[in-house]
Amino acid sequence: MARAGTLIESVMDDIESKIASRAYLPNTRLPSVRAQAKAMQVSVSTVVEAYDRLVAEGTIVSRPGAGFYTSGPIAPLDLNQIGPKVAREIDPLWVSKESLEATPDALMPGCGWLPSEWLYQTGIKRAMRSLARQNSLDLTEYASPKGSQAFRHFLQRRLLSQNIEARPEHIMLTESGTHAIDLIARFLLSPGDTVLVDDPCYFNFHALLKAHRVNIIGIPYTPNGPDLERFAQALADYNPRLYITNSGIHNPTGAHLTPSVAHQLLTLAKASELVIVEDDIFADLETTRAPRLAALDGLVQVIEIGSFSKTVSASVRCGFIAAKPDWIEQLVDLKIATSFSGNRLDSEIVLQTLTDSGYRKHMEKLQGWLAKQRIDVSERLLRLGIQPWIQPKDGMFLWCRLPTGTNATQLAQDCLSKGIVLAPGNVFSQSQSAHDYLRFNVAQCTEQKIFDVLDWALKQQQ
Amino acid sequence: MARAGTLIESVMDDIESKIASRAYLPNTRLPSVRAQAKAMQVSVSTVVEAYDRLVAEGTIVSRPGAGFYTSGPIAPLDLNQIGPKVAREIDPLWVSKESLEATPDALMPGCGWLPSEWLYQTGIKRAMRSLARQNSLDLTEYASPKGSQAFRHFLQRRLLSQNIEARPEHIMLTESGTHAIDLIARFLLSPGDTVLVDDPCYFNFHALLKAHRVNIIGIPYTPNGPDLERFAQALADYNPRLYITNSGIHNPTGAHLTPSVAHQLLTLAKASELVIVEDDIFADLETTRAPRLAALDGLVQVIEIGSFSKTVSASVRCGFIAAKPDWIEQLVDLKIATSFSGNRLDSEIVLQTLTDSGYRKHMEKLQGWLAKQRIDVSERLLRLGIQPWIQPKDGMFLWCRLPTGTNATQLAQDCLSKGIVLAPGNVFSQSQSAHDYLRFNVAQCTEQKIFDVLDWALKQQQ
Repeated sequence: MARAGTLIESVMDDIESKIASRAYLPNTRLPSVRAQAKAMQVSVSTVVEAYDRLVAEGTIVSRPGAGFYTSGPIAPLDLNQIGPKVAREIDPLWVSKESLEATPDALMPGCGWLPSEWLYQTGIKRAMRSLARQNSLDLTEYASPKGSQAFRHFLQRRLLSQNIEARPEHIMLTESGTHAIDLIARFLLSPGDTVLVDDPCYFNFHALLKAHRVNIIGIPYTPNGPDLERFAQALADYNPRLYITNSGIHNPTGAHLTPSVAHQLLTLAKASELVIVEDDIFADLETTRAPRLAALDGLVQVIEIGSFSKTVSASVRCGFIAAKPDWIEQLVDLKIATSFSGNRLDSEIVLQTLTDSGYRKHMEKLQGWLAKQRIDVSERLLRLGIQPWIQPKDGMFLWCRLPTGTNATQLAQDCLSKGIVLAPGNVFSQSQSAHDYLRFNVAQCTEQKIFDVLDWALKQQQ
Repeated sequence: MARAGTLIESVMDDIESKIASRAYLPNTRLPSVRAQAKAMQVSVSTVVEAYDRLVAEGTIVSRPGAGFYTSGPIAPLDLNQIGPKVAREIDPLWVSKESLEATPDALMPGCGWLPSEWLYQTGIKRAMRSLARQNSLDLTEYASPKGSQAFRHFLQRRLLSQNIEARPEHIMLTESGTHAIDLIARFLLSPGDTVLVDDPCYFNFHALLKAHRVNIIGIPYTPNGPDLERFAQALADYNPRLYITNSGIHNPTGAHLTPSVAHQLLTLAKASELVIVEDDIFADLETTRAPRLAALDGLVQVIEIGSFSKTVSASVRCGFIAAKPDWIEQLVDLKIATSFSGNRLDSEIVLQTLTDSGYRKHMEKLQGWLAKQRIDVSERLLRLGIQPWIQPKDGMFLWCRLPTGTNATQLAQDCLSKGIVLAPGNVFSQSQSAHDYLRFNVAQCTEQKIFDVLDWALKQQQ
């Protein structure tokens, strides 16, 4: 009986979680008892009992002659109620809030952006002064639906330098890289679809995909790109609709895709009609170009997105989508419906900064600083027994393994109490298999205090 | 037989449109033949035949022993495929694009914003120069999750002047008013829910709600607010989740809510757990304050939103949501997941402009210009036989009835061929009952050419 009770409860839990995540919509018919029993591989009597109890709870209603229906209207969407419960410290939303809300004196080796003084502030200020001098429509008028023509011409040339061919009319500006992915998800996904991400991957992908109520499957990431065997298996098992990745500087590992993996990955994707979103926000930090899936594919199944939050400014919002023509037109409709217009002033500030003669020079200096910091921080971490997974060629991230037996979540909690914001590995891991990893941002690791507090926190766990 | 054929086809059409609008999700079980027959009030054999034909077409699949399922994955979301087909000229998305894409020399009496030179450009420029002088984090860093603390304090005082009490922690900044409504819709709505709008209402509400795949019901708007009898009836008939309205200067009519209608409306809403979004984007154009539902309600069932696109700048994006505490926290999570961060630079430019000593004076001048223009344009339109529905106290809009027998859509098409962008009535009307109305923006009606072309186009229809 205990076993039967457990089974009934697990059927109830499964149905309740489908309702919470809106996989079952309100006022909608549930599968018949027989179909449910078959789908869940339990007996018909177990489902009958589970449905009866759910009716008693008011979660579902029985309509005689028509079957069982979900009750409606349902509670508002609560992202914290979707998916398995995780500790607060490894909840992506919590980590985002913690970093975004940190006081100016907090040290943030776990955050994903550069310190303000490393960015090209001179260029931003020059662009703002120049715009403030003109009687420009850029100051007051709505943007055109796809955004500034001049910016899209600039992006065409920029993409071409990565061997990606996209005409200006196949490019649309967005508010940010996240906004770009969100529009694509709205366009391509329905609740219950499956999406592949790298494991580990940028933690906000998890939060964003949760908001779209899709199944998220993590593919183990290797130093050369995703594990192809597991990728092929996931295609066969889940028939996923979308895969989101960074080909250049991978977040959080700093690895990059090799040409061979890129080619095989695309071959697999072609065979299964998988759409790939290639998120290229770190492009300007690259000294050696990794191959781009969009270059191999020619924007057929690959959608290229990017933004300038990491290299120009996170305060001035501007991103883009390059995709095939009919998709761009429908994405424009979705953008108008949900934002009405884009950010004209910001896109003009970013364009002027990017085309300022000092920008390229500043980026070269920045690449040099980052290279130096990657070595310096690696050495300091190694002395504490913290081991970088690889030595990345570019970018700001070091993905690091803690000494055996250390719990990254506990470490992050201890360090937070001393004003240090870390990024514990499981925030990035769909499979929750990175409990002994941390992501470090070398640009945010200039203070000795960080290493002193890490040393202290590691000793707490010995 | 012809009749049977028609019935089967109409069942097929209904199912196909439910699949296109994602009311039926991909890979999901369809209602059983008997349940479908009952729901559609047709015979079982009609449904059997319709299902069989849909299987033959590949739209649905039969899984022996488990029923009929939608095929998957489905085509990407195409807003133009949702809802009844309307002529291109009265498709809200088309009108938005036409206005947003218009060349600088097009005249746009139909557009919804002020000419650039009517806005407080001096203030915007001053704010930009001041920010460009500082070494401010506002230039480069991410915004905090709710947005600038100083701005939210300012909004607290501003809302209080409308008798709306909201603490800064119950206010969240957004990218725009549209973004605010979109986040609320994501939070509260599921596909298939019903939403009430005014008929007529701001046309982009239709496009936005279509993107959320909800049923839209229009409530006739009277010079005092929505028709209360029809409102009560809609509550009883559809159990709607949300109602979106403008209480101050109603778009497109320029009317405002009277205290008595506001009170009765809120009483009806209370009895049915309806949530109301009060969109207050024209607040600074009001000379006499209309009552606010949020003031009567105390932000229990009412959510107050606003933006500064109409009074500061449409290029600099900044809006807000004020709502009850637990809703704001969940809306913040959704904002982080789908945008990561807000627009820090823009919110700072808007705040400095709004608090600049010249802003209030500029608004008073603007209110005067608009009052003069409303009278002047009314007179010129009357001479052409075009009759304002009411004489609004405030704002830029005149909602006007055309001479008997005139078709506004045809008129808009004819005028477009002469470089004049109009806003035909049915764009604003869910029931498509405003075929002989146009919305005029008096601030965009300064050129004699507009009236000459209107005169010519009216004569084409005589």
